Amino acid sequence: MDKEKLSGVFAPLTTPFNEMGDIVLEKLFSNIRHLNQSRLRGYLVLGTNGELCSLSHYEQMEVLKAVVKNASPDKVIMAGIGAESTKVCIELCHQAAEIGAHFGSLVTPSFFAKKMSDRILANHFVRVAENSPIPVLLYNNPGITGITISTKVIKEVSLHPKIVGMKDSSSGNLSSYILNAEPGFSLLAGSANFFFTGLLMGAVGGVLSLANVFPEHCCKLYDLGVTHQFEEGKALQFQLMKINQMVSGNFGVAGVKAAMDFAGLYGGPPRAPLDPLTTGEKQKLLEELLTSGYLKGDREGGG
Amino acid sequence: MDKEKLSGVFAPLTTPFNEMGDIVLEKLFSNIRHLNQSRLRGYLVLGTNGELCSLSHYEQMEVLKAVVKNASPDKVIMAGIGAESTKVCIELCHQAAEIGAHFGSLVTPSFFAKKMSDRILANHFVRVAENSPIPVLLYNNPGITGITISTKVIKEVSLHPKIVGMKDSSSGNLSSYILNAEPGFSLLAGSANFFFTGLLMGAVGGVLSLANVFPEHCCKLYDLGVTHQFEEGKALQFQLMKINQMVSGNFGVAGVKAAMDFAGLYGGPPRAPLDPLTTGEKQKLLEELLTSGYLKGDREGGG
Amino acid sequence: MDKEKLSGVFAPLTTPFNEMGDIVLEKLFSNIRHLNQSRLRGYLVLGTNGELCSLSHYEQMEVLKAVVKNASPDKVIMAGIGAESTKVCIELCHQAAEIGAHFGSLVTPSFFAKKMSDRILANHFVRVAENSPIPVLLYNNPGITGITISTKVIKEVSLHPKIVGMKDSSSGNLSSYILNAEPGFSLLAGSANFFFTGLLMGAVGGVLSLANVFPEHCCKLYDLGVTHQFEEGKALQFQLMKINQMVSGNFGVAGVKAAMDFAGLYGGPPRAPLDPLTTGEKQKLLEELLTSGYLKGDREGGG
Amino acid sequence: MDKEKLSGVFAPLTTPFNEMGDIVLEKLFSNIRHLNQSRLRGYLVLGTNGELCSLSHYEQMEVLKAVVKNASPDKVIMAGIGAESTKVCIELCHQAAEIGAHFGSLVTPSFFAKKMSDRILANHFVRVAENSPIPVLLYNNPGITGITISTKVIKEVSLHPKIVGMKDSSSGNLSSYILNAEPGFSLLAGSANFFFTGLLMGAVGGVLSLANVFPEHCCKLYDLGVTHQFEEGKALQFQLMKINQMVSGNFGVAGVKAAMDFAGLYGGPPRAPLDPLTTGEKQKLLEELLTSGYLKGDREGGG
Repeated sequence: MDKEKLSGVFAPLTTPFNEMGDIVLEKLFSNIRHLNQSRLRGYLVLGTNGELCSLSHYEQMEVLKAVVKNASPDKVIMAGIGAESTKVCIELCHQAAEIGAHFGSLVTPSFFAKKMSDRILANHFVRVAENSPIPVLLYNNPGITGITISTKVIKEVSLHPKIVGMKDSSSGNLSSYILNAEPGFSLLAGSANFFFTGLLMGAVGGVLSLANVFPEHCCKLYDLGVTHQFEEGKALQFQLMKINQMVSGNFGVAGVKAAMDFAGLYGGPPRAPLDPLTTGEKQKLLEELLTSGYLKGDREGGG
Repeated sequence: MDKEKLSGVFAPLTTPFNEMGDIVLEKLFSNIRHLNQSRLRGYLVLGTNGELCSLSHYEQMEVLKAVVKNASPDKVIMAGIGAESTKVCIELCHQAAEIGAHFGSLVTPSFFAKKMSDRILANHFVRVAENSPIPVLLYNNPGITGITISTKVIKEVSLHPKIVGMKDSSSGNLSSYILNAEPGFSLLAGSANFFFTGLLMGAVGGVLSLANVFPEHCCKLYDLGVTHQFEEGKALQFQLMKINQMVSGNFGVAGVKAAMDFAGLYGGPPRAPLDPLTTGEKQKLLEELLTSGYLKGDREGGG
Repeated sequence: MDKEKLSGVFAPLTTPFNEMGDIVLEKLFSNIRHLNQSRLRGYLVLGTNGELCSLSHYEQMEVLKAVVKNASPDKVIMAGIGAESTKVCIELCHQAAEIGAHFGSLVTPSFFAKKMSDRILANHFVRVAENSPIPVLLYNNPGITGITISTKVIKEVSLHPKIVGMKDSSSGNLSSYILNAEPGFSLLAGSANFFFTGLLMGAVGGVLSLANVFPEHCCKLYDLGVTHQFEEGKALQFQLMKINQMVSGNFGVAGVKAAMDFAGLYGGPPRAPLDPLTTGEKQKLLEELLTSGYLKGDREGGG
Repeated sequence: MDKEKLSGVFAPLTTPFNEMGDIVLEKLFSNIRHLNQSRLRGYLVLGTNGELCSLSHYEQMEVLKAVVKNASPDKVIMAGIGAESTKVCIELCHQAAEIGAHFGSLVTPSFFAKKMSDRILANHFVRVAENSPIPVLLYNNPGITGITISTKVIKEVSLHPKIVGMKDSSSGNLSSYILNAEPGFSLLAGSANFFFTGLLMGAVGGVLSLANVFPEHCCKLYDLGVTHQFEEGKALQFQLMKINQMVSGNFGVAGVKAAMDFAGLYGGPPRAPLDPLTTGEKQKLLEELLTSGYLKGDREGGG
């Protein structure tokens, strides 16, 4: 049942700020209402694209409440509950569950990176899961944390009934995790760049920053992957990679937000110290998005 | 005046936990009462050795309040106010100032590490300082953050009247920072390993994890450094390095805490997922500390 | 025509040493005679698995001559001609061409890693290619060199008529290179771990350390990839990954050599300072290889 | 006796190329004749500044012969004999000894970096030393190799009668090596940036790229360090750091060579793919060197 809930495309929601850096909750509402009409399986709240680390604890909870309240009932909600200590992770699981999240997304601790052995990570994951009221999804993101969850840890913790899967953003290890995980464990691609091949090899879904901008195209790629429509899927995979390397690859969160602005949602600036795109960068991004032909199409497709 | 306040040895206080991982404030009180009797210049609260990242926001404030309340009036208090966004850093500065901290310790943001250009870092430091009610001390710790503050940034921000200095834990760059900083800027060594040579080259003090365990020996090394007593200083420097490479070098926070236990303070376990030292590791550490002859001496010296 | 020559599976030949660390050319002969009977497309000589860096220049040329002399006429020979300076690379190209190699394999310089900008790398590749008597194949191996060739460089140099392709060992970037390269540019997977998905996305072949041990299974996977036999290919891909993560993943060159010994070829020890597998490691490897059922099958399949 | 030979300042000689990238031995002769007149203790040939990795094996030997032939009899000659395999290192030791080098400089192997455990490195160092006709000096340069020799390895191998010392370019570990090495082991600073403090803590000399340009100033700093003339030494240390961060820090070998051109020696371009300084960069460097007042002074001082 967890596997079914995790199958499909998730948008890692961005957090809307105004020019002063304050959260604008109405913009979050309107974004969700727009995305509710898509075939997205659900939302990841308080992830990297949500700039969770740039928010105060209070703000994090406000954002999660806003998403839970505005998401349509068919959407599955994952909430970032990662922190540096086991204790704080467990507290966040309880808070997220109380607010209404369906899954907790548990990133590897990384502050004391040199101490994060296989043993320490496995213990951490299991303790959080056992004390969490909601099932836990691991989050492997070495590009940010500097830590790669080993296949040995996955072999071990994928047995645990409350550790139901992993979002993998590591670019290149997804097949190894699929090979080493227990059969019921759900792997999700953390980037559009390897979503189609990931689905072919056994991933059940993806958490794709591009799904904030072009949800229907991402859902279409999911369909093509799970039905093994190879030629069409490969072509769409390359189209989305091309957009992705320009939006998220070059510019990160600021690029995703700028693309959202062009696609009729509210992106806005990232929170300082991150800079928004310059006028020149925005212009270049717009030209490339117009060339792709997706801008108009998606707004129609998406609602 | 800031320079005078920053001149000397600071202990980066550890946060005492019980076996359940709960904070034990009474143990923090007793540690501070012990350290109050030493010639330490002051305390760094909510730093790496304080496991600040392992605490909830509420706990961080509780710890800071406890330190402010129990520190003797002659002690200078720096509080970690680093966070990933400029906005949250500013909020933390206000909270720390209200509670009674004298300086804010501002670590480099690192979550979006690839975006942390010189320009972004300098802007961040200046904006936080300008909006902070208390002066700000930068904190350069590439071993943890993966980010090294450039000498170019130091040249620029050391001009700012509210950015009064930097604690450097980078091992090898301290002289370069001294060379490139404006004259009034206070550099503090972030490790006993280069404290004496740092003082000789112009550092005004140090924030030394060993000062939690052997405050008087650290203060003695400070005296020898500022008075250029070369042979004696070199000998003491090597003695402290030898202890440091065993305590902090091998074992990190868990080692500092174990050494505190042996020295008559309360160390206790680090918070999970960090592990305490094994029985074998503790035994080995005790033997080496006894060999050093410091265990007894310091308790006498320190009070 | 180059593309046709590069299509298929290549074995990156190991260099046989005796216990004294001397090259044993007869063992190289017998290995090649064995592999000549397989459907391998050809051989990479003087690559990472050939421990090229552990050989003197004289030995490198001896090894290349031995391979050229013993390879059957249908086998395509690539020779490592990478070096730290453009001039030495060009010399090596001439020597390799004179001995009889068909392609030069040009790894990124990495000694002055911080200076290796896109511009410098592109200039280096083009100058070597323009002065080489044989076509050049780039070699991207960030796990060893610390340098990742950018898609921008690939976009640029893939236009060059004498830079005919790239072997990519970067784990996760192969699709991006396919997307950004000019149509005629041949991409080869540098590991069995992503060979099948690589073929699906447009790679023309692979240079697989496992092809030294199980050439027929690797060729079978190639067939399944180019004919889009999805279910069977996926199953074989996972089988080879399982073997690969044990052989090459855990143990590197020493593991490949030990597996060759078990498969009836000559592996022998790596050259010091690399250590051979311990008796315990060899036992464990043998057990896992026997469990896989490949040991017997391949010897039959391979001739 | 080895300690005496290693005490003082060494210049890591650059290799002169013309615009075509060919070695110009006469320029090497004239540089050496110039440096022979200084108080330098000797020369390091075939080091990083000599672009050893950019030379063919034949060229390396030509350069070494040229230095041996032209160095005045009082100069001590160290030759780079590092390679990736123990066997090739030993061969290079014999060749270097035959040509007339006094010490072999043995850098850590780094191609198979993940395999370079303490055990493997210690075995490698000892085997090379035991089979070398000349004493061996280790070379620790993590900025290039990615490998830091541990204090544990130093503790062990510093006992060996033929491993006589280490050149440390690691920036920040020199005192730790001094603390952990056996008394007779000679530590040399690998950069002017920590030469003075290194001498104060017990280093016996330095191998300084700046000694190619300003040998007398470097020798003066050595004098001040060994005689503990603290204030004057500190001032000169900061002056040389300022020059060093501009010459070697910003520009590397190309910067050292450009500064040599300005100082009346022959620098010339580095070998491709490295680029020489642009006209703008040269102009900026010249201005800063003129500001320092060293350009004229050293030519007088140096002869």
